[in-house]
Amino acid sequence: MKTKNQKSANEVEILTGRLRELSYLSSAISVLHWDQEVYMPKKGADARASSISLLAGLVHTQFLNIDHDGLLSSLGKKLSAKKLQPHDAAIVRETVRSFEKASKLPETFVKEMAELTSKAQHVWVEARTKNNFALFAPYLEKIVAKKREEATLLGYEVSPYDALLDTYEPGMTSAEIERIFTDLKEFLIPFITQIRKSSIGARPRTNTTSAQFPLEKQIAFNTEIAKAIGYDLDAGRIDVSAHPFTTDFHPHDVRITTRYNLKDPLESIFPTLHETGHALYAQGLPHEHFGTPLAEAVSLGIHESQSRLWENLVGRSLPFWKHWYPRLQKTFPKAFTSPLGAFYRSLCRVKATPIRVEADEVTYNLHIIIRFELEKALIEGAIEARDLPRLWNERYREYLGITPKDDAEGVLQDVHWSSGYIGYFPTYTLGNLYSAQLWNTVRKEIPDLDKRIAKGDLKTLREWLRVCIHRHGKYHSADDLILNITGEKLNPEHFSRYIREKYSKS
Amino acid sequence: MKTKNQKSANEVEILTGRLRELSYLSSAISVLHWDQEVYMPKKGADARASSISLLAGLVHTQFLNIDHDGLLSSLGKKLSAKKLQPHDAAIVRETVRSFEKASKLPETFVKEMAELTSKAQHVWVEARTKNNFALFAPYLEKIVAKKREEATLLGYEVSPYDALLDTYEPGMTSAEIERIFTDLKEFLIPFITQIRKSSIGARPRTNTTSAQFPLEKQIAFNTEIAKAIGYDLDAGRIDVSAHPFTTDFHPHDVRITTRYNLKDPLESIFPTLHETGHALYAQGLPHEHFGTPLAEAVSLGIHESQSRLWENLVGRSLPFWKHWYPRLQKTFPKAFTSPLGAFYRSLCRVKATPIRVEADEVTYNLHIIIRFELEKALIEGAIEARDLPRLWNERYREYLGITPKDDAEGVLQDVHWSSGYIGYFPTYTLGNLYSAQLWNTVRKEIPDLDKRIAKGDLKTLREWLRVCIHRHGKYHSADDLILNITGEKLNPEHFSRYIREKYSKS
Repeated sequence: MKTKNQKSANEVEILTGRLRELSYLSSAISVLHWDQEVYMPKKGADARASSISLLAGLVHTQFLNIDHDGLLSSLGKKLSAKKLQPHDAAIVRETVRSFEKASKLPETFVKEMAELTSKAQHVWVEARTKNNFALFAPYLEKIVAKKREEATLLGYEVSPYDALLDTYEPGMTSAEIERIFTDLKEFLIPFITQIRKSSIGARPRTNTTSAQFPLEKQIAFNTEIAKAIGYDLDAGRIDVSAHPFTTDFHPHDVRITTRYNLKDPLESIFPTLHETGHALYAQGLPHEHFGTPLAEAVSLGIHESQSRLWENLVGRSLPFWKHWYPRLQKTFPKAFTSPLGAFYRSLCRVKATPIRVEADEVTYNLHIIIRFELEKALIEGAIEARDLPRLWNERYREYLGITPKDDAEGVLQDVHWSSGYIGYFPTYTLGNLYSAQLWNTVRKEIPDLDKRIAKGDLKTLREWLRVCIHRHGKYHSADDLILNITGEKLNPEHFSRYIREKYSKS
Repeated sequence: MKTKNQKSANEVEILTGRLRELSYLSSAISVLHWDQEVYMPKKGADARASSISLLAGLVHTQFLNIDHDGLLSSLGKKLSAKKLQPHDAAIVRETVRSFEKASKLPETFVKEMAELTSKAQHVWVEARTKNNFALFAPYLEKIVAKKREEATLLGYEVSPYDALLDTYEPGMTSAEIERIFTDLKEFLIPFITQIRKSSIGARPRTNTTSAQFPLEKQIAFNTEIAKAIGYDLDAGRIDVSAHPFTTDFHPHDVRITTRYNLKDPLESIFPTLHETGHALYAQGLPHEHFGTPLAEAVSLGIHESQSRLWENLVGRSLPFWKHWYPRLQKTFPKAFTSPLGAFYRSLCRVKATPIRVEADEVTYNLHIIIRFELEKALIEGAIEARDLPRLWNERYREYLGITPKDDAEGVLQDVHWSSGYIGYFPTYTLGNLYSAQLWNTVRKEIPDLDKRIAKGDLKTLREWLRVCIHRHGKYHSADDLILNITGEKLNPEHFSRYIREKYSKS
């Protein structure tokens, strides 16, 4: 006879089997997306969109069918009664969470949203090209209306924005974000004003000559760095796309893209470091749990902390370049002639600019704070889409002291809203804050980390991240994970201190 | 009120919608296969196999569900009563045909076959590497047993082989193949013996020097040829894989692969010509009928006729190289120093060799005939898998006058049997025969074709193929299609004459 525990374990096994099937189907969708961005010929777009939307519909339907025999409900009751082993409990907790969210959105709603955002993305491209916000405004209005409806369907306690935010950063609330961002603003706005008056903003962007940097050499250098960090290229690849990204089909197939500028190799190195950070997380998830929440990233904020840590905390540090600058000089002997110190300082340039993705690590968060404030006000109905260009430019003036020259350079610059990604932006800054907090801890736990990095040893850090973060998947919440590792909840002070120390003394 | 015809048309529309959905899902599987062969990192293999098999299962189930409301049955009755418009009739005829075949194979059978061939392919790779047929034999035995079972499930009148052949070459029978192949053997075996005594077999393979041929230049040259033929690279791409292949996701996304040898550019040019021939067919299918049999290739034999026509009838002709040889010389000025005539003769080398994919256009068909005779005997139970190495070598001695040095170079060389592709091989030779017959017709219909090709005009021929073959999809049967175009049924005499004329006078 089976014991009750055995029976639950078997039920979890059956659930895991169903989830795994769904993940293999979702992986297929990810491959189609990857190919679309990287290799698909342009005439293939319509057929691809049909394949993706059909598969997405299938996955949605099949997920909603996961409780057809009451399996998930039964496990949910056992979870409430605390009758599940910890790993099983995490699987059930997260699956119930996703299932309840998905169940609240009727199929017609999901389809309408997909069609609306598909059209809106095309219109957004046109509006940005033509620098014409009026073209995009009616679509954005519809998207905002739909997202308000989505928030109502999902349910919320304080702000409808909470319901949307929770999709990207489970457990986070807009009140908490507001508290954090207010502190951050109070530090950043005067700090940037101060920097503007110093020499830091005037530093040349790079100290390269006008030499050409052959593609093959750049590819080889990027690959060498990615491998040194611990990116397993037998379980991944580096391709080229207009906007660098990371995608994972399974912990054994995690791919990144970067982009190359023949005039400046640094323009590929930092995206490569960033995406490799994401890729290490995805490769470090426990493959034996593939398909279950135990092999999923805990939140977008934590995911972003991994990319930012490698891009900024490591990649824009002096120890890192102690090892890599001589290699860069050897690879491009005519180009990098200045000494290490001058090269390093050129990487630490701070200057308010209108485009988010080109921003330095100090001003970046103000770009995010502006977006958060505006999209929250939109969802709460305090402002409307048509008010955005004016408000956008006002905030840029107020927070960053600059005015975008037009809407293409301003409110139209990001794809997110046209895709219906409202509630996503804050995770970028959460990533920056998490990364600084993790950095503070790892430097205490591995006191000679700087020395190791300066010697080219990046794997010690990678291993620490794997043990502390990657291998846990969604076993803990983001909150608990950070508390377990660093001994405190998210604390933006670590980021402020990092910025203050780095940019005051230099 | 709707007329009966309108009602049928609506039913066909509903059927078309269902078929189209299935095709978009099948396209997703094809993308996964393409990526697997071209870009997938090696550790991704297991997860990929799971995604593919799940999707394949879904497509199979969904196809079997296509008649859940009796739609197809109702249309089938109207087809029998000749109440459908010709295009609708073709859609229904071919869908009923596929549906009846698929319905005869139980799901457990399909799954078992998939698992068996998946394992068998791995074992075959190992057996070939280790030159150990005994490793592979038990798997081949099981595959043959399963294929015999498949033939029984599908049903047949004369030979169980007919049931398998019909999957690849609808309407063809083994008796017909036997008749054709017997004629061909009677011509080829003495003809090759005669050539062996002449100077044709002794010609050097290429007249290149030992120069290196840079990859970028080879890629550019191959791309130029493919474009000149009419391959639309906005709806396609050329990548690299170990075994060149063509895959199509939609007429607007048709991809080929080739392979490059840095020591011999001709080793990529002929595969590129071959695969481009396939690609033109797939791009030429009527995209407005995507999903239905009207946008599917009529048979593998006709598909192969398109690749062989470009590879051999065009690609190994003097007019073609009149235009392209000077370009090849210009691209690789140091390498191709001999005059056009000598270069052309070096392309027309005939020599029996043990490996099928390296065979010239004369000996190639004997490789196929041997495989056909052996696999037919296997399926009919006249021989067993363990007899194959001995029989294989005997036939090679008898038909080609050579003995493979071992099984890796002999019976283990092809992947087909390990994949369960029994009944597939004859379509290669059918392709050669169809291509010569089509060639005979087009040269009559376009009397100045040689001159056009010599001037670099390949699009006249492409257009002729599009109008006569590509745009028809499965509207006609292969038999009727060839009859309509050439005025006669498949007639191997055109191929024999082409070979006799080309290789006797030169």
